[in-house]
Amino acid sequence: MLMKRLISIVVLLPLLALAQDKDSVMIKKFSDEILRNGTAYDLLYQLTKQVGGRLAGSPQFAKAELWGKAALEHAGADEVILQECMLPHWVRGGKDKAVITELDKKKTTRALDVLALGNSMGSNGKTITAEVLMVADFAELERRKDEVKGKIVYYNYGFNPTNVMPFVSYGQVGIYRRSGPSRAAKYGAVAVMIRSLTESTANDPHTGAMAYTDSLPKIPAVAVGPRDADYLWSIKTGFKVSLQTNGKYLPDTIGHNIIGVLKGAEFPDEIITIGGHLDSWDVNEGAHDDGAGIVHTIEVLRAMKALGYRPKHTIHFVLFANEENGLRGGLKYAEKAKENKEKHIFALESDEGGFTPRGFGFSFKDKSKLAKVQSWLPLLRPYGTDRMIDEGGGADIGPLASIFGTPMSGIIPDPQRYFDIHHARSDVFENVNKRELLLGAVNITGLIYLIDQRGL
Amino acid sequence: MLMKRLISIVVLLPLLALAQDKDSVMIKKFSDEILRNGTAYDLLYQLTKQVGGRLAGSPQFAKAELWGKAALEHAGADEVILQECMLPHWVRGGKDKAVITELDKKKTTRALDVLALGNSMGSNGKTITAEVLMVADFAELERRKDEVKGKIVYYNYGFNPTNVMPFVSYGQVGIYRRSGPSRAAKYGAVAVMIRSLTESTANDPHTGAMAYTDSLPKIPAVAVGPRDADYLWSIKTGFKVSLQTNGKYLPDTIGHNIIGVLKGAEFPDEIITIGGHLDSWDVNEGAHDDGAGIVHTIEVLRAMKALGYRPKHTIHFVLFANEENGLRGGLKYAEKAKENKEKHIFALESDEGGFTPRGFGFSFKDKSKLAKVQSWLPLLRPYGTDRMIDEGGGADIGPLASIFGTPMSGIIPDPQRYFDIHHARSDVFENVNKRELLLGAVNITGLIYLIDQRGL
Repeated sequence: MLMKRLISIVVLLPLLALAQDKDSVMIKKFSDEILRNGTAYDLLYQLTKQVGGRLAGSPQFAKAELWGKAALEHAGADEVILQECMLPHWVRGGKDKAVITELDKKKTTRALDVLALGNSMGSNGKTITAEVLMVADFAELERRKDEVKGKIVYYNYGFNPTNVMPFVSYGQVGIYRRSGPSRAAKYGAVAVMIRSLTESTANDPHTGAMAYTDSLPKIPAVAVGPRDADYLWSIKTGFKVSLQTNGKYLPDTIGHNIIGVLKGAEFPDEIITIGGHLDSWDVNEGAHDDGAGIVHTIEVLRAMKALGYRPKHTIHFVLFANEENGLRGGLKYAEKAKENKEKHIFALESDEGGFTPRGFGFSFKDKSKLAKVQSWLPLLRPYGTDRMIDEGGGADIGPLASIFGTPMSGIIPDPQRYFDIHHARSDVFENVNKRELLLGAVNITGLIYLIDQRGL
Repeated sequence: MLMKRLISIVVLLPLLALAQDKDSVMIKKFSDEILRNGTAYDLLYQLTKQVGGRLAGSPQFAKAELWGKAALEHAGADEVILQECMLPHWVRGGKDKAVITELDKKKTTRALDVLALGNSMGSNGKTITAEVLMVADFAELERRKDEVKGKIVYYNYGFNPTNVMPFVSYGQVGIYRRSGPSRAAKYGAVAVMIRSLTESTANDPHTGAMAYTDSLPKIPAVAVGPRDADYLWSIKTGFKVSLQTNGKYLPDTIGHNIIGVLKGAEFPDEIITIGGHLDSWDVNEGAHDDGAGIVHTIEVLRAMKALGYRPKHTIHFVLFANEENGLRGGLKYAEKAKENKEKHIFALESDEGGFTPRGFGFSFKDKSKLAKVQSWLPLLRPYGTDRMIDEGGGADIGPLASIFGTPMSGIIPDPQRYFDIHHARSDVFENVNKRELLLGAVNITGLIYLIDQRGL
């Protein structure tokens, strides 16, 4: 036994070292290729400046599809599949307006910078003028529910600055954006305003998806810029707001997930998915959210082709059609995968921006697999990955994980600046740094390479 | 023996756990205080917008001193010492100009965006017009030394994009800025141009200190914006450049290191130093370099006072007078410490920008101490510190380490964006993120607290 163990150690250790070495050499090649010749930044320029904001259903989204197909082809996909998928078509319909009135005896007015929440219904061409009921949170709304009728409810619930991780704060406040309107409508509110979900020092308001409870009136809802929110909260009572929004749904349109395929040499029927979402909010260029994820995805493909790397498994490079206000893209991708009896062994999403990568989060049913990928940390640490944590994934690949139990992962870029620009006008190309963006692609490529080589 | 060991384990483990717990609670308190009430961002606004660029010797630097003294007093220093120190007084003297001429038969001209290197001498009110000798590096200069006479030498040596850590690139190219002018003057060059030390996608040129070899002619020297540098390198030969710079030295002026003191309760004679440098280049606001280090320093003091924390050791919060072009501040601080027979047990500098903190570098003579601080990593990891590496410090505290062998450390913020703005016009307040800046102060406070409590 001892002898046998000794032999295995003597035989296996050098093999292991060899594998480590081969993989670290290959990852360094990927890194050099991407940092030297990467096109992600230039592609992002095209997507943000030549296509622009591209909410699902919009003409710009159709343009983005064509751009994405061409980009995947140019990067060297074996084939590019357009996977049809019906898209919601919400439009903002015009400029969102809110003005404080009757602030004092002189009847001074003051405009607020607001954006209608995505999916919210407009005020039908009318201006709603009503007293504002200011509440700190849902608890206060419940306590004061008898005061709500006929008023505009304003929720001041904001990020907790003491959370080091802003995604924790976002998790805590998101429900005010999603459900705040219907919770106020339940008590007779005529409209809702929320503090923008951000800690930004600028006054840009932050839109984002909301959803009505079907049985309740669909009242207008806006996000207020953070500095205007501070101002509102400081005056507290005794004023009215005149509000006009114009949101509405047009009929669903036909759209597509754009899927670049690189066929696997050894296990062509086993699929690894990498993706981001092609749609963005209408008010910005969708540079970090999620232009970054889109160009990360394309860059991984480009780098593999540039180095002549033929994966063992088939890789799908997916530009998902509709994450922001419907998730139709991710749902369709999973539905089709089920229909076609595909075997999905791993899925990774990049949808937290193009900032310096710090690691990955993983959702494994079998937790022992986490330890396995964590053992690869030394191979990725030179490129910025310093954490591989339990929990992670992405909205678009969630349905795949639900249906198949596919292990999924999300890249974790440095999160501190994300909510400055998230769903705000400031999510533009100029706020993306080239090296940070490319390093994201380096780390994703490294991880995908290791999974492809070593399996899970 | 076994019994004894068991007893120690039984007795010591809970004590250790208790200490861990007490310290982690205290660090969380510091973090909450700084993220909730930190004034670093507002102080940085004052320093960048109300004082502005503040090269040592300039009137703005004198204004910065007054600002710094008031800020340290307001943050609650027991006393604020103005430590006199003679400062060099280099002035740019006007607008730096460079124009390409005789590019073609039509004698088209094209202006280049350039900045004279710090400490460089101007062209004496004259315009120098000469053919340009383009070289990739010093090796090419040496090979072509016979062609140099009467020409302007241009060095194209730039950052290596495949270095994941930009400070590695900076280390590799810095010698072209510092010594390039004299190395070309040696062979008769009339002026020098260098590619700016950056990977920025913008065209802003990046200044920074150079030093002449005394025995050689002091020829003008400029940094060329990166896009203009690409252009120059693409045309390569057959053109002249007309250059005018105006740099000169005025007589040294009297300046000061500004030292806020917090007296130690248990070991008042043992000093911990935290600092950054108050001076900046003249062409920008010195926001990251090193306004961030200055407001980090002041924030640590403010947070300690806000929580009523009285340190065991005396802490010096030092705004060093002159790092960029002379290091006179750091040299004076060490010289005075020696003269006064002070005991310096640790020094930390923040001079790599106000970006998200990723850890600390340490220079210990006794390497076993590195393991000791590394054992504290779990206490700082929740705030972003994921590395405590061998090697680190700062220019201003270097002399202290040289004279006393004082262990020193430098905070390591995420480095990817630093050289976009380093010594360029774009190092302005708007490029600093509030949360990233405050998190730097959180991690420094945590580390200093642990050193104060546990010793080294």
